[in-house]
Amino acid sequence: MNLQNYVEGKWVTGKGQPIELHNPVNNEVVAYAGSKGVDIASALNFARKNASPALQKLTYEERAKLLDAAVEVLNNNSKKYVQAALSNSANTAVDAMIDIDGGVGTLKYYAGIGKNLGDAHYISEPGMERLSREKAFQAIHVLTPLKGVAVHINAFNFPSWGLWEKAAVSLLSGVPVFAKPATTSCLVTYLMIKDVVDADIFPVGSISLICGGGHDLMDHVQAGDAVFFTGSADTAATLRSNPNVIKTGVRFNVEADSVNMTLLGEDVEVGSPLFNGFVKEVAKEITTKAGQKCTAIRRVLVPTTLIDAVADAVSAKLAKVVVGDPSVEGVRMGPLMNKSQQNAALKGLEILKKEAKVVFGDNNNFTLVDGNLVDGCFVQPTLLRCDEPLKAKRLHDTEVFGPVATLMAYESVDQAWQLAALGGGSLASSVFTGSDDFAVTAMLALAPCHGRVMVVNDAVINGHTGHGIVMPQCVHGGPGRAGGGEELGGLRGLKFYHQRSAIQGDIALLAKITANAVEI
Amino acid sequence: MNLQNYVEGKWVTGKGQPIELHNPVNNEVVAYAGSKGVDIASALNFARKNASPALQKLTYEERAKLLDAAVEVLNNNSKKYVQAALSNSANTAVDAMIDIDGGVGTLKYYAGIGKNLGDAHYISEPGMERLSREKAFQAIHVLTPLKGVAVHINAFNFPSWGLWEKAAVSLLSGVPVFAKPATTSCLVTYLMIKDVVDADIFPVGSISLICGGGHDLMDHVQAGDAVFFTGSADTAATLRSNPNVIKTGVRFNVEADSVNMTLLGEDVEVGSPLFNGFVKEVAKEITTKAGQKCTAIRRVLVPTTLIDAVADAVSAKLAKVVVGDPSVEGVRMGPLMNKSQQNAALKGLEILKKEAKVVFGDNNNFTLVDGNLVDGCFVQPTLLRCDEPLKAKRLHDTEVFGPVATLMAYESVDQAWQLAALGGGSLASSVFTGSDDFAVTAMLALAPCHGRVMVVNDAVINGHTGHGIVMPQCVHGGPGRAGGGEELGGLRGLKFYHQRSAIQGDIALLAKITANAVEI
Repeated sequence: MNLQNYVEGKWVTGKGQPIELHNPVNNEVVAYAGSKGVDIASALNFARKNASPALQKLTYEERAKLLDAAVEVLNNNSKKYVQAALSNSANTAVDAMIDIDGGVGTLKYYAGIGKNLGDAHYISEPGMERLSREKAFQAIHVLTPLKGVAVHINAFNFPSWGLWEKAAVSLLSGVPVFAKPATTSCLVTYLMIKDVVDADIFPVGSISLICGGGHDLMDHVQAGDAVFFTGSADTAATLRSNPNVIKTGVRFNVEADSVNMTLLGEDVEVGSPLFNGFVKEVAKEITTKAGQKCTAIRRVLVPTTLIDAVADAVSAKLAKVVVGDPSVEGVRMGPLMNKSQQNAALKGLEILKKEAKVVFGDNNNFTLVDGNLVDGCFVQPTLLRCDEPLKAKRLHDTEVFGPVATLMAYESVDQAWQLAALGGGSLASSVFTGSDDFAVTAMLALAPCHGRVMVVNDAVINGHTGHGIVMPQCVHGGPGRAGGGEELGGLRGLKFYHQRSAIQGDIALLAKITANAVEI
Repeated sequence: MNLQNYVEGKWVTGKGQPIELHNPVNNEVVAYAGSKGVDIASALNFARKNASPALQKLTYEERAKLLDAAVEVLNNNSKKYVQAALSNSANTAVDAMIDIDGGVGTLKYYAGIGKNLGDAHYISEPGMERLSREKAFQAIHVLTPLKGVAVHINAFNFPSWGLWEKAAVSLLSGVPVFAKPATTSCLVTYLMIKDVVDADIFPVGSISLICGGGHDLMDHVQAGDAVFFTGSADTAATLRSNPNVIKTGVRFNVEADSVNMTLLGEDVEVGSPLFNGFVKEVAKEITTKAGQKCTAIRRVLVPTTLIDAVADAVSAKLAKVVVGDPSVEGVRMGPLMNKSQQNAALKGLEILKKEAKVVFGDNNNFTLVDGNLVDGCFVQPTLLRCDEPLKAKRLHDTEVFGPVATLMAYESVDQAWQLAALGGGSLASSVFTGSDDFAVTAMLALAPCHGRVMVVNDAVINGHTGHGIVMPQCVHGGPGRAGGGEELGGLRGLKFYHQRSAIQGDIALLAKITANAVEI
């Protein structure tokens, strides 16, 4: 199959030699994609001139209904996407569920909260303030939808979720989507967009898709557009340095890889439900999607007294994980995305091994079900251990984007917070403790350097949503190395696709403006 | 006087040849400044390690009281600053009031709203949301103060206001201030910080000051810091492109020059109070601080039918403005900041004159009171006119940072909105109209490309705060060319010095966390 690009309301085939999309189990070609010759500047202008006014003519509620219609189309075709995720990304059933159901679920969530916004065309913030001796002169703040295009550059690991978690908020805001998924895994993205386009739900130009390289995309963004990037810190740096990006001051949101951490409290006893839940979560984070989640646990902080017990328990869990071709019954973890990811992960592992020792994995007793290491992109689930992590450097700044995590011993909680901060800013953190006092201390220590802190105690040990799972109700993003961006967070997410402006004027006029808005 | 730098709680003299600070009226040296040899990395670390914990040990209310104490010190010494603003920036009394009283007023405003935040150490946002089947597992959002330093790089035009509008919010948030004012006008900044430091109000290291060049400052910022830049789009681009800035993903807020606009509605009759108020405001914006305000009106959009009347009326106003040495009684406008600013303004004027004709000024009948064009940095108040502004290009992207504005005729309101958007994103806009319906339309058209829209009708014509005046209650900043940043906006301003994090966990624990926070 040759995956086309969708621009200016038309399907366009890229010119020249297309890029091969492979099955990471056996390196067989599953599709082709290319975007050479696509006029990106013209495509962006088409969306700005046609789709933006058409979308913004609708109310929030009307756009929410369009999201709902898209959810229906996607749900009706979900088997096709699961099949594509198996062949193009070697997803297990669980991996595919996180990506595909996660994406459609986020779209459904925004359709739901969007309906409550009613028939407004813009948003107001609470409060009106007097500004001068003249009582009538006051100020309010409004949020109006951006007039440009939302350029969504997504990572290979979530071809569905990455697409819809961004598109849901953007389309609900009335801002057309220009999707640039990672080419290597864009089959799922392509199929989903194709179905939604065929169903003729959104005004023409509301969704654009580039299946191949982005080429000169960054040279054509402008004020009023918003660029949302998810991917590696290196690529983020390249895109952010683009002279046109710098010059135009275009809104630029980055959600980058980070060296996320989890922490086991000193109060937790070996063998307790909380201990077992912690061990289960660490093993799950290492193996789900073969560790290819930006939020996955990379650093596991445990008290010195508990590190042996944790090492044994996590190793025992990892030993039971069947790795191989996910199309085979019983396989629980597939390969990495491609050869390049496999090589990068193995290279990163070598860096970690200079400061940590291997507790489990690293190709010892690595048996594969229906796959091999030459054609397939497999990496064994690997657990490392470092007993003096404050002396380490690369353990805190190297993200191996695969099934790898490092246990780190901490002697005091102060040491633990130091270790946490060495990540330089991360997306997600979690703490397992039965002590409320410690939980509050931990929250205050971790929040400044994390976009999310999950605290697990006995009350929620069986009912939490997981360290690495992004919930649309919560902001997603993190400071520093994690890119400094923010997405989602319920209605907060809409703010990133709106311009906030102070409106000053006669109190009677401001009351009229507020009456026409929806307050959030 | 040789202005020292204040780092690590000590006054340090720069090494080598210092930079001269001049009186722009006559080019006489008024002070020296230099920062060569100052260990900036060490200074930043000192603030992070010492001042940050000391400030954050205090509650919001306690920090608000420190702001109040600083206000008292500054008010007691205000005459000294006005004198310095006269000698170093050639401010008129009104110019000095906007800068000095504006800065201290903003500090006082934040001291006031800070007291209402009480004895909390962090902020929570409204709402708690259930995340899973387990009722107990929910999420809240908290804002915790950044653990780093707030680096404030300020423009030459507001040595007081630029300092305090940023420092007020930063210090109230518990984040130490690292002030880098523009060297050319830093005498006022130096004197104010010296007085506050001598009064021993804040924990040591809470305020740092670099009076000379910033040198390698950008190479030493890191995750957890926040950089706030006000100045030209060019300098913003340079700083934003710094590899360390890109790599660390440090929070970076830009408030850059923009080509702000005002608009006269078609409903306004010549000679009406609204017409006269509009004319007065345009003339005031051209001449206040000799046009050296980032928010100043640069483009004046008027209906084709009214452009002659507006041209005559504004010219008449400008003709009455006495330009010269502001130390002389009766002088209403002083020179630009220095020779470099004068040259840049004259050069910019030449660019504008290719697309617009001169209505008033441009060195015709330019008489100066106690000053001359050779030693002094004077530029005559100048009004230009363009009757087909949609055909112009440079009129919309060239900001002459001086007493210059261009009248532009619009034939229809749609044309007016097109013209407005050609600014590429601006800080401030204003609309003068008696029609509520038109005001609402204008607000919706202007808000997406402006950080602020002031609407003036008869009810507020005598009581508004002015097109170019930044009120601490309102967000300040603008999209696109204006940098995409945000400052101030009442309590909103605190968010820029805090990290927002989603906290997931047991509902009972979350209730405890919320109980200790202040909700905003």
